[in-house]
Amino acid sequence: MIQPRTLKGFRDHLPAQALVRERVLDVARRVYRSYGFAPIDTPALEYLEILTGKGSEETDKQLYRFTDHGGREVGMRFDLTVPFARFAAQHVNELGLPFKRYHMATVWRGENTQRGRYREFMQCDFDAIGTTSPVADLEMVLVVHDLLVAIGIERFKVRVNDRRVLAGVLGRLGLAERATGVLRSLDKLGKATAEAVAAELEGQGVAGPAVATLLEMVALAGPADEVLGRLHDMAGDGPGTAGVESLRGIVAGAAAAGVPVGRVVVDPGIARGLDYYTGIVLESFLDDLPGLGSICSGGRYDDLAGLYTKQPLPGVGASLGIDRLLAGLEELGRGGGPETPADVFLAYFGPAHLADYLKIAAALRRAGLAVEFFPEARKLGQQLKLASKRGFPAALVIGGDEFQAGTAQLKNMASQDSTIIAWHGDADALAAAVRVALGRPGSPARTSG
Amino acid sequence: MIQPRTLKGFRDHLPAQALVRERVLDVARRVYRSYGFAPIDTPALEYLEILTGKGSEETDKQLYRFTDHGGREVGMRFDLTVPFARFAAQHVNELGLPFKRYHMATVWRGENTQRGRYREFMQCDFDAIGTTSPVADLEMVLVVHDLLVAIGIERFKVRVNDRRVLAGVLGRLGLAERATGVLRSLDKLGKATAEAVAAELEGQGVAGPAVATLLEMVALAGPADEVLGRLHDMAGDGPGTAGVESLRGIVAGAAAAGVPVGRVVVDPGIARGLDYYTGIVLESFLDDLPGLGSICSGGRYDDLAGLYTKQPLPGVGASLGIDRLLAGLEELGRGGGPETPADVFLAYFGPAHLADYLKIAAALRRAGLAVEFFPEARKLGQQLKLASKRGFPAALVIGGDEFQAGTAQLKNMASQDSTIIAWHGDADALAAAVRVALGRPGSPARTSG
Repeated sequence: MIQPRTLKGFRDHLPAQALVRERVLDVARRVYRSYGFAPIDTPALEYLEILTGKGSEETDKQLYRFTDHGGREVGMRFDLTVPFARFAAQHVNELGLPFKRYHMATVWRGENTQRGRYREFMQCDFDAIGTTSPVADLEMVLVVHDLLVAIGIERFKVRVNDRRVLAGVLGRLGLAERATGVLRSLDKLGKATAEAVAAELEGQGVAGPAVATLLEMVALAGPADEVLGRLHDMAGDGPGTAGVESLRGIVAGAAAAGVPVGRVVVDPGIARGLDYYTGIVLESFLDDLPGLGSICSGGRYDDLAGLYTKQPLPGVGASLGIDRLLAGLEELGRGGGPETPADVFLAYFGPAHLADYLKIAAALRRAGLAVEFFPEARKLGQQLKLASKRGFPAALVIGGDEFQAGTAQLKNMASQDSTIIAWHGDADALAAAVRVALGRPGSPARTSG
Repeated sequence: MIQPRTLKGFRDHLPAQALVRERVLDVARRVYRSYGFAPIDTPALEYLEILTGKGSEETDKQLYRFTDHGGREVGMRFDLTVPFARFAAQHVNELGLPFKRYHMATVWRGENTQRGRYREFMQCDFDAIGTTSPVADLEMVLVVHDLLVAIGIERFKVRVNDRRVLAGVLGRLGLAERATGVLRSLDKLGKATAEAVAAELEGQGVAGPAVATLLEMVALAGPADEVLGRLHDMAGDGPGTAGVESLRGIVAGAAAAGVPVGRVVVDPGIARGLDYYTGIVLESFLDDLPGLGSICSGGRYDDLAGLYTKQPLPGVGASLGIDRLLAGLEELGRGGGPETPADVFLAYFGPAHLADYLKIAAALRRAGLAVEFFPEARKLGQQLKLASKRGFPAALVIGGDEFQAGTAQLKNMASQDSTIIAWHGDADALAAAVRVALGRPGSPARTSG
């Protein structure tokens, strides 16, 4: 006998979890599409040189790699950005530019699992490449906003900043050369105290007054106009001004698109650790779970695929951290749900009325309801116990007596209340009555194809 | 510079393909759910011993396997059945029985690619375990039927048989001991001629009259009643009779559930090569592409997870071969489609009216339409050329003059006809008019969450 078990850092998704995940993926797909992002897919396995080309020590170390049957060195993708860069370089002529894609797929990293991280997880990326338009930047913010609203989250903030503003301020402080280290330290705020970050900056040789300015900058808060005015003073002319103006456009554009005031916040404390961002950077947080971290993050980059093509591909993109979001929904008590996707549990009393049950199940499905016709003629109590455990909203009970009387018992599994429906052998009439009882009036939602 | 390329046997999915695939997956998910099958997911990587436990020489040879960072021998899943067996053994107490699941995911096999096979492909399995009920068998047939109809295929057959019938006939011919070899030979019919199969059977030592009976059996065709009557004569009493009765129930049940007569066909020629089927077996074929092979196949097995648990888990399952189906749709001229998921291309004439464009795009999305607002203020002809190449149904053109006049031009990209819409600055009125022009009257389909 072989012990059934999963590898460390890997996990199964049972129906209750899988249903919540499918719902969120479905919402993400709908929102991405509503902005014209098109789906793509790439292989899980790539030539090793494609994946290690970026030369990040951390990802290289975490890479699942091996030699395949043909002696090729291959690796499993660790994110969706590197495969997209390879994809874009390979297909740019077919695709045309600008090109907007989404990609929702699994990635693998042999990470240390002690921090509650998984070695297999999903990413949901969306990017617009081949454009430097401010419209593309703005759309990132709008997509993140619409996505969180569509998932049913009301209390959240999309926090935006611009790397050029940071560069402008650092330039005026004479810290342009040390930008990477300084930004990395500033990025720790929130996790570390201001004092600790100040000490770290001073340890890098940043002078006291400059440290004070930097800490003032990242702490700026309040109405966007005021924050942007102060940032303009701090960043001076040049790229810093362009960054401030860009942020002004984001705030105004979000308002024009109908985003409620206060949902999009200019936050000079958002730096994003990654070196390759060059313009807008954004993160998003749930008001009720500030410690969860950013749910959806991204920014503008100068060139996606410089390793694979000479054609410059500037772009802007972001990624929904779906596993983090699902953990957040669970923490908010909104992760639990039924173990079944079906609306109705149809109890079974045996083969005498099998044809009738089949007709009823077919009529319910025609009416747009998902129905599980229980295959075993167990005792009714046992059937209903399983239906209850699995979270069916309703159970339809039609035994021999009911068939004779032309009635059916519809049991609300939450309240345990029963309704008697008279259907007189007309399965479609029964299905229509069940729809109404489940609060689904109107025409069935089900469409073919 | 690193050459951007994919591994042999692996491929990218560009938007046009990815959109068709997403549509089919969506339909499959909806149909599976309408019967109460619940989603699950399992890791791409499993302990090697889990995957090699079945001991099939072919799959073992094709397995992508390696040693991970922790020194564990691991492999990438080559199907969804073995991981499901491991999953079921591990979680059966949590899940309860019977348990119905679907699993749509990628699998990997280091196959010979010369036959046009890919080394990475998707499977869409659905199984009901923990039940021997004929209802569960019947539902396989109904799901396959509903699935093909929902995808938009009208001309197809679901072909069913029962392994017990085959066993009964073989028993009466004294060939019970040689069943595996005989079934394997019979399974070649369709690809090979009757003469070739007869020669192969005789080569196995099957006597001439028995070969004739076997060939008569697999060629039986016509009304189900007649085929079943003749099969009953050939199979005799015992398990053969049970198989015939079971098939009778399938035919009657499908009719009761509303499946048109002739769509479900009893075909004694369906054997399915795999040894583990013990009851119903089914395949399905497109009438217009008989050479494509079966699109959706499966059957009943005695025990899913005997390698991992002592608890017997009988079940019945089938799998949609989505890559084969997509190839078939393409061959039927129904694979091509737009490269964009969006309904409307919104042309851009520059920042002067940016806020207006954003309001219009937001109103279109509120009205349930997907809209790509083009981020670059290129010449209109260039914008429309890209919109046409990408297959947008419609383009909305609103330049300075139109804004002044309170009008908009809606261009049907297929006919190149334009309609003028008067909207007088009311973006929601414009969106409603666009919906109607696109043939989407009624309330918007978009619902939150």
